[in-house]
Amino acid sequence: MEALRTRASAQPLQDADDLIDSVETFIFDCDGVIWKGDSLIDGVPETLDMLRSKGKRLVFVTNNSTKSRKQYGKKFETLGLSVTEEEIFASSFAAAAYLKSINFPKDKKVYVIGEDGILKELELAGIQYLGGPEDGGKKIELKPGFYMEHDEDVGAVVVGFDRYFNYYKVQYGTLCIRENPGCLFIATNRDAVTHLTDAQEWAGGGSMVGAIGGSTQREPLVVGKPSTFMMDYLADK
Amino acid sequence: MEALRTRASAQPLQDADDLIDSVETFIFDCDGVIWKGDSLIDGVPETLDMLRSKGKRLVFVTNNSTKSRKQYGKKFETLGLSVTEEEIFASSFAAAAYLKSINFPKDKKVYVIGEDGILKELELAGIQYLGGPEDGGKKIELKPGFYMEHDEDVGAVVVGFDRYFNYYKVQYGTLCIRENPGCLFIATNRDAVTHLTDAQEWAGGGSMVGAIGGSTQREPLVVGKPSTFMMDYLADK
Repeated sequence: MEALRTRASAQPLQDADDLIDSVETFIFDCDGVIWKGDSLIDGVPETLDMLRSKGKRLVFVTNNSTKSRKQYGKKFETLGLSVTEEEIFASSFAAAAYLKSINFPKDKKVYVIGEDGILKELELAGIQYLGGPEDGGKKIELKPGFYMEHDEDVGAVVVGFDRYFNYYKVQYGTLCIRENPGCLFIATNRDAVTHLTDAQEWAGGGSMVGAIGGSTQREPLVVGKPSTFMMDYLADK
Repeated sequence: MEALRTRASAQPLQDADDLIDSVETFIFDCDGVIWKGDSLIDGVPETLDMLRSKGKRLVFVTNNSTKSRKQYGKKFETLGLSVTEEEIFASSFAAAAYLKSINFPKDKKVYVIGEDGILKELELAGIQYLGGPEDGGKKIELKPGFYMEHDEDVGAVVVGFDRYFNYYKVQYGTLCIRENPGCLFIATNRDAVTHLTDAQEWAGGGSMVGAIGGSTQREPLVVGKPSTFMMDYLADK
């Protein structure tokens, strides 16, 4: 320990150079690393420029599934950073990429509890979906004899952060998972906290996933951080 | 096993009589035992009359927290059964009774994610509350810099089934549990399923509890079935 500490304090720059030379791909978290809310973090542009000048591969990872890769690209642009869609790995994209990786049947649909980013990525992947923001205003009239229909072609329920979360979505997603044979329960992430505004911490995707877990008694397959799917996908690229 | 089976088939009525004679208090679940949705189950009135004629104490337990004991009394009446409020142990009441049992401070408040039954029982117990159905229509504008205020006097968040569940409630309850020192997280129940209509199974209180568990990373204290609080309370009466 002592030896290490001495070496680190004696040659910090040398060590940083060694580290950079030995690594091919740099994976960055976005929130709290690249930006905080809508503000760029100090030193980020210089660091990214330096890594690019050395030919490093950069990947920007975010568990926030409210935006698609394209929408994240715009956020990078607004902050003055030049990042391609291929360099972005958002959990919205991860859900679509996972379904593609398992050859999700073309005649099956995805029920989405989440926001626009998931819908956009499913669309790009050519996967049929329903739900999402559209179900945000729907209510259930629990009158005697009321029966909620659900689409028997739903083969996966994808759950991510959803500020328009409601009981209609909980019941719809639960019915699909419980009653459609083989229906998958996929979570973009289980984060307790998300940073939608920089003023405070917000209840994260873990809430929506916890709700569906509570009614289905099933564990989700997580495709965002920390999941083996993400690392396998990035390694294969 | 063989001997037992022979005895059971030879003397079923004798065994039932022995069982009844040896038991002082009979605890009944309501849903699926006394009624199904809004229909009384066959044989229930005769059985209850028989037990009462033998001087047995009857307790009717329900994890459904949407109604208070008084409101359940009316449901029993509608079905033609004469049951007193004291004989009803609803999880709405359990939440209030638990808070009374720990001498919940008079100057503290309860934030309710749930329906009218919980509010009514808290009121009867003289406990201040906020939230409940009133927050069902509230929305959050997640604009940059937006900050959600919360009441620092909230000392407990009570979570039960809530058909008006939304993200406002998730965030409010989460802030109280996360930021108010010592704030309790109380669940009326964690049932995956509830029977609000007899036409199908509905996602139960376990959904709302799962959501708050997902964002707070805390385990709730459950006061309904199956909880030691309920059995201790009934044994003490």
